[in-house]
Amino acid sequence: MRDGLAREDLHASVSDPASASMNFLNEVSARFPDAISLAAGRPYEGFHGTDDLHRYLRTYLAHLERLGLDPEQRQRHLLQYGRTNGHLGPLIARMLAQDEGIEVPEQAVMVTTGAQEAMVVALRGLCAGPGDVVLAVEPCYVGFTGAARLLGIEVVPVPETADGLDPETVLAVARAVRAGGRRPRALYLVPNFANPSGASMPVPARRRLLEVAAEADLLVLEDDPYGLFGLDDEPRPALKALDTGQRVVYLGSFAKSCFPGARIGFLVADQSVIDRQGRRTLLAEELSTVKSLLTVNTSPVAQALVGGFLIESGCSLRTALQEKTRFYRRNLRTLLTALEQSFADQPGVRWNAPDGGFFAVVEVPLTADEGLLEISGRDYGVLWTPMSFFHAGDGGRRALRLSCSALEPAQIEEGVRRLAQLVRDRAEPR
Amino acid sequence: MRDGLAREDLHASVSDPASASMNFLNEVSARFPDAISLAAGRPYEGFHGTDDLHRYLRTYLAHLERLGLDPEQRQRHLLQYGRTNGHLGPLIARMLAQDEGIEVPEQAVMVTTGAQEAMVVALRGLCAGPGDVVLAVEPCYVGFTGAARLLGIEVVPVPETADGLDPETVLAVARAVRAGGRRPRALYLVPNFANPSGASMPVPARRRLLEVAAEADLLVLEDDPYGLFGLDDEPRPALKALDTGQRVVYLGSFAKSCFPGARIGFLVADQSVIDRQGRRTLLAEELSTVKSLLTVNTSPVAQALVGGFLIESGCSLRTALQEKTRFYRRNLRTLLTALEQSFADQPGVRWNAPDGGFFAVVEVPLTADEGLLEISGRDYGVLWTPMSFFHAGDGGRRALRLSCSALEPAQIEEGVRRLAQLVRDRAEPR
Repeated sequence: MRDGLAREDLHASVSDPASASMNFLNEVSARFPDAISLAAGRPYEGFHGTDDLHRYLRTYLAHLERLGLDPEQRQRHLLQYGRTNGHLGPLIARMLAQDEGIEVPEQAVMVTTGAQEAMVVALRGLCAGPGDVVLAVEPCYVGFTGAARLLGIEVVPVPETADGLDPETVLAVARAVRAGGRRPRALYLVPNFANPSGASMPVPARRRLLEVAAEADLLVLEDDPYGLFGLDDEPRPALKALDTGQRVVYLGSFAKSCFPGARIGFLVADQSVIDRQGRRTLLAEELSTVKSLLTVNTSPVAQALVGGFLIESGCSLRTALQEKTRFYRRNLRTLLTALEQSFADQPGVRWNAPDGGFFAVVEVPLTADEGLLEISGRDYGVLWTPMSFFHAGDGGRRALRLSCSALEPAQIEEGVRRLAQLVRDRAEPR
Repeated sequence: MRDGLAREDLHASVSDPASASMNFLNEVSARFPDAISLAAGRPYEGFHGTDDLHRYLRTYLAHLERLGLDPEQRQRHLLQYGRTNGHLGPLIARMLAQDEGIEVPEQAVMVTTGAQEAMVVALRGLCAGPGDVVLAVEPCYVGFTGAARLLGIEVVPVPETADGLDPETVLAVARAVRAGGRRPRALYLVPNFANPSGASMPVPARRRLLEVAAEADLLVLEDDPYGLFGLDDEPRPALKALDTGQRVVYLGSFAKSCFPGARIGFLVADQSVIDRQGRRTLLAEELSTVKSLLTVNTSPVAQALVGGFLIESGCSLRTALQEKTRFYRRNLRTLLTALEQSFADQPGVRWNAPDGGFFAVVEVPLTADEGLLEISGRDYGVLWTPMSFFHAGDGGRRALRLSCSALEPAQIEEGVRRLAQLVRDRAEPR
């Protein structure tokens, strides 16, 4: 190996184009540390401190004591290997019932090492053969398309509208896939305040999507990291809450509601699985083998942190997280107002007005590629994400994603002013 | 989905035979909770308490402070998303240098969600196409063969001898694979006190194996969870310590040295990777894309626990873990003595005498299958693991693995007595 391994001999996922793009973004961010980053979609850092770690652990241990575990059992619960599907099923099921009206047995919940692992588990379990493909909204969160590439599963894009996915388009794509001799196993989407587009699906479209899933014999992978952070209190029912036909596998994350460093996510899969002898199990239970082969089980200490957080929240994040909700609302409103102020008079610039979440998309009269991003960081002191990063083909070339989750309002305003200057200086005819 | 999903439509890894076997073992254990488990290979639980969690966190935070991180940076380090390959590279590199004489740059270390994820990352990165296969010692740790199945990678078994893998057999198998038009990318083995066999490779065979790896153009995946727990202080150099040709990717685990609940493992991959433009990177850096698509990054809180443990150990586990080493030595000696006492006069029973680790193998004059295990648990109050679980073919049918890591000596002795009674009662002519 002294001569080295040839990079082209490594698996395609090593050279994943989205990851290469994200690496580029990280490099640019590192080279221009003083630039305002409207690229970073991470949660704001002011909500939790390291003291919380100790308190959450103590809260969870006290909870275990109330459940009747003696000191030796509590120690084993946190320090030993544990149940493959994790310990938080009861608390998460309670949270889903209270916050989302999702009623599932605790055995349908699998705790994962972040929502990323939940995607890998669901993809791997559902796609069995070379003809099994998944549909996914486009533009799409790169972690999903990358996970599919890792497993050699083809992703068929379904273009998004301003109102999120159009169910009839989903049906048409699914039928075309089936007509081509392949089997569409699932559809991936983020129905609330999507990453990257910010788009949300209206309630009637959600209901129709579930009908379409049944017609096309699809499961729906519903990813919902931002659902708590709507601009208003209007109910936006999760697909899983409307899912009377058990078509939806729900993917959840505590990275935004609690904090990312716990790396705790989960999936809810209450579908019946039937073997040839007619025995029935829950899909979440069947998927535990896949989970065990990825990471054995999710760190029970990390689970305990989120467990403590859930207990302190009374298992209702909608009630307990009002400070966070207010913060993200204010930031998104600030972003949308700043866009209005900076771009209202600028020809060829359009942006959407999401109802919540961390992101908005701006269409600009120039090619928003890596080269422009570098100029933007170096000469204008502002970073953003090219929308082309979220497309498999050549879509999104004249659009960019702005994120407002990690900043203070004044930074958002200044960042948008700098972006407007860039666009004014470099606008090019189409 | 009201009618349910057909289990046969799920991916083959869901029905992984080894996992099915392990599930059976867990079920039997749950049904006979009073049976002595010589099946459980988990570490003993008496070494760490929940107070350690708080102390390790504080130790690691103090370490970050000494490194010059201000309170905000320390908070971000633990609670935010973090570097894909983790934070513990410097501490792990120091540990490997002190304990193993392995000298690698900290950038060659990737922190993973347990050694299981390290296996998935290495397998995925190295096996690019359908003709890429891996060789693995047989009998083999089921987590490895299962991870390969998850990724659709074929595992070609290389039979183990009493002295671990024979390098010439490895060479012959690798050549046969290549002659068959496939490409052997790597060889998996546990050179120290293997799971399940307990076998270890003599030092000359280790050196020869590295020559063979170069001749056959193989990488070696060296899994070393038990290396600290030799019966004596004789040096057993890791393959990675002898690896002047950068043929070895080293897989490590803190589940046995620290505790399993942190779910922290790592891989060391200091191989050069060269792209078509001649640019060089380290394999660990290239593999970070794969890692990011599995779990984004390993929980920095969980890393902090192991970080605190490493700092308190002066990054030398061989020095710091003497209590654990003494405990496991005593247990293995107890197991071997008990086997001698219970089985010396029994015809047809043979066992090996490993130089360390958690396991020994007993050959018995009867079929040691799931049926016998159930009888053993119910009527004899002792559990063990059929060796057939660790074979792809029909090997290991009249052998069982005994583990002595999680028990007190008196339990080990009683467990072996019960096992001897079972074998006496049910011995059958071959």
